[in-house]
Amino acid sequence: MPEPSKFLLTDSQIPSAWVNVLPSLPEPLDPPLNPQTRAPLTPQDLLPLFPMELIEQEFCPKPLIDIPGEVMDVYRLWRATPLYRARRLEKALDTPAHIYYKYEGTSPAGSHKPNTAVAQAYYNKRAGIRRLATETGAGQWGSALALACQLFGLECTVYMVRISYDQKPYRRMMMHSWGAEVYPSPSDRTHSGRGVLAATPDSLGSLGIAISEAVEDAATHADTNYSLGSVLNHVMLHQTVIGQEAKLQMQQAGEEPDVVIGCFGGGSNFGGIALPYVLDRLAGHGPRLLAAEPTACPSLTKGKLAYDYGDTAKLTPLIKMYTLGHDFVPPGIHAGGLRYHGASPLLSHLVRLGHIEAQAFPQLRCFQAAVQFARHEAILPAPESSHAICAAVEEALAARAEGRPRVILFCLSGHGHFDLGSYESYLGGKLQDYEYAPREIEVPAMAD
Amino acid sequence: MPEPSKFLLTDSQIPSAWVNVLPSLPEPLDPPLNPQTRAPLTPQDLLPLFPMELIEQEFCPKPLIDIPGEVMDVYRLWRATPLYRARRLEKALDTPAHIYYKYEGTSPAGSHKPNTAVAQAYYNKRAGIRRLATETGAGQWGSALALACQLFGLECTVYMVRISYDQKPYRRMMMHSWGAEVYPSPSDRTHSGRGVLAATPDSLGSLGIAISEAVEDAATHADTNYSLGSVLNHVMLHQTVIGQEAKLQMQQAGEEPDVVIGCFGGGSNFGGIALPYVLDRLAGHGPRLLAAEPTACPSLTKGKLAYDYGDTAKLTPLIKMYTLGHDFVPPGIHAGGLRYHGASPLLSHLVRLGHIEAQAFPQLRCFQAAVQFARHEAILPAPESSHAICAAVEEALAARAEGRPRVILFCLSGHGHFDLGSYESYLGGKLQDYEYAPREIEVPAMAD
Repeated sequence: MPEPSKFLLTDSQIPSAWVNVLPSLPEPLDPPLNPQTRAPLTPQDLLPLFPMELIEQEFCPKPLIDIPGEVMDVYRLWRATPLYRARRLEKALDTPAHIYYKYEGTSPAGSHKPNTAVAQAYYNKRAGIRRLATETGAGQWGSALALACQLFGLECTVYMVRISYDQKPYRRMMMHSWGAEVYPSPSDRTHSGRGVLAATPDSLGSLGIAISEAVEDAATHADTNYSLGSVLNHVMLHQTVIGQEAKLQMQQAGEEPDVVIGCFGGGSNFGGIALPYVLDRLAGHGPRLLAAEPTACPSLTKGKLAYDYGDTAKLTPLIKMYTLGHDFVPPGIHAGGLRYHGASPLLSHLVRLGHIEAQAFPQLRCFQAAVQFARHEAILPAPESSHAICAAVEEALAARAEGRPRVILFCLSGHGHFDLGSYESYLGGKLQDYEYAPREIEVPAMAD
Repeated sequence: MPEPSKFLLTDSQIPSAWVNVLPSLPEPLDPPLNPQTRAPLTPQDLLPLFPMELIEQEFCPKPLIDIPGEVMDVYRLWRATPLYRARRLEKALDTPAHIYYKYEGTSPAGSHKPNTAVAQAYYNKRAGIRRLATETGAGQWGSALALACQLFGLECTVYMVRISYDQKPYRRMMMHSWGAEVYPSPSDRTHSGRGVLAATPDSLGSLGIAISEAVEDAATHADTNYSLGSVLNHVMLHQTVIGQEAKLQMQQAGEEPDVVIGCFGGGSNFGGIALPYVLDRLAGHGPRLLAAEPTACPSLTKGKLAYDYGDTAKLTPLIKMYTLGHDFVPPGIHAGGLRYHGASPLLSHLVRLGHIEAQAFPQLRCFQAAVQFARHEAILPAPESSHAICAAVEEALAARAEGRPRVILFCLSGHGHFDLGSYESYLGGKLQDYEYAPREIEVPAMAD
């Protein structure tokens, strides 16, 4: 047998706890603020939207949180996910670097998103909730939550950005197949949706509007909660199964990564692969951690660290994060999951503390790397994941230029089966890059 | 830990040889015939289309054929595929049956097709061939061959049935992303294509026409061979990795199947799961083997066992098989991969010998079973695979009616990520069943 290129875990090696870095932080996170009072948010403030067990996880002081058995039962349907060494890609790049990737596309929804969707559905079911409402852009998150709700016997209502609803029907159909109700947003089902429609009958919608609709739906129905697929601490927590597995698998491979890479939108995929390594860094060792974001929406590299709203409509709490401003509308890059004006407060904090580096990549270079990856490693990556691939390729080429080895680990967050139209546009020369035009970043004024 | 529901193999447990049942048959297969002379086909007859190593496998007397190391290197990218016990589905059906499924959708192309595409690309590369030509309907086979050619440095030309080319763009884009050239068929690139276009400028194409174009392309270019994704003995051979792995995994589970089920079009998926069990049956024990075909195209249950052409245009050798007639045009069911007038000669022979049962299922019942499966087991099945699910559900319900346990193993041949439109039609009540109207089956007259 040749040297192995694939590293698998048994069911008994799937992590049995989520890793919480909150208690290990050298400086605590700044608290989220009530948008009316500007006072630190209390758990009670969040109860109309989330079940208490998730709210507790949001502020949890324990370093490990056991994964409930019912969640483990679902995780085992596709976890542990495989870790690969990209030997064919290494050869094509003629690099002394070793490139490893953790592949989250084997979940039934095709990305890492079910890792938190399943946990959120479980805790909501336990709290007696009958239905979850959420928003989705291109549909990765919506389909993950539709699946999770189906498995736990919850109803699921998804507000899908109108233009995606029309242009990306396959993700919508996937949600239907798993039993979810999907409405184009703005819809006539909510006050906020009707308001937008009255002003702009042909509105294409936006993630901001869809969030407003889902939050309103949850807040106005006692049996319904809201569910978010990124940004929040409990989402980052649930995603740490990725990095924990990757660490075990890198041990199998007998190597330690020099750099760990993930794509970065709100932060859930990057947090998933990187947070278990953050603990190593906080203990004085550990690899470089590199967040790969799009140049079109560079919240970490061009944003401002400040209190801002999580949505365009200013309905959410104020959170301290790197932001391009809640009114920033990112251009229409194909990595829809990375089109977010803000960033996880926890990961923002770790960027400020110097534990996480960030670099922005233009979409043409990302698609070039994704096609190169697909042609050597066989898997067709999601456009979001292509940012991590691009960063990994650049690290590998830097190693070649230096003539020194380097161990690179990146997370391949999902497959691109529903994004082939963007590959076709790229291969046909029809894609363009978008540079971020520096602008005045407006955030709410804070009292001193 | 609860009782396991997933059975994995290590890389060292992936089969290192393909299983060949030809030498174990109690009666030999009737030979394919040269369509001009009606004499048994010689290897030389096939050399314009296939490399000698594949031709030898077509007639091979050895019970085991080693899998080349370069093919193993590619298999290991996704093999061994997982075997699951469908505990959630069992519970929903309230059945004493145990239902296991072998899932082939984890391959990068999303089905079992790469098992033979990779082997075919390898042997053609070794024979000094520069390019492979093939046909594809909905695109499962074309995308598998595009991937395989890319990995072995071959060019790939795919003639895709015009209506699929227009209506199912995602599979076409997948082939492009893996570097293949894809032409709508009929095309102006071949004599036969131009002939059809001259007579019918707006022809929607058919698998028969596309086969003619691919065969002509290969036959008229010395550096180009033809590649077929089903029917032939060497294709069945390569697919036996599926059943061999499943046997090991059923041992892990500590159970023996009472019945083994696969969907049936040309036979490559069914052969893959069933042929290793055929050897058990030929040795006097072994499970029932059940081929699940569509009522709209019931070659095994309503066809005639006779020599017939493999294509509509009568270009292929004459092969002895269950056939609905080479001029039969199946209705437009969504399981495009099962719309074939004929059947593998080897599997046809085993049906006649009583080792394989066949049953036909209407598409509405198959979609109903597929949606039930997706909502309990999370994976969205391909429409082809839904026939195997439907058969498994009926076996499980029969076990419930009898009040006796039954161990059911079926092959889930692929995911339905590119078939969500058909789910949407089903859920919207827009699908219909097609019954096969008994007809005079015309096959070529044979001299006695």
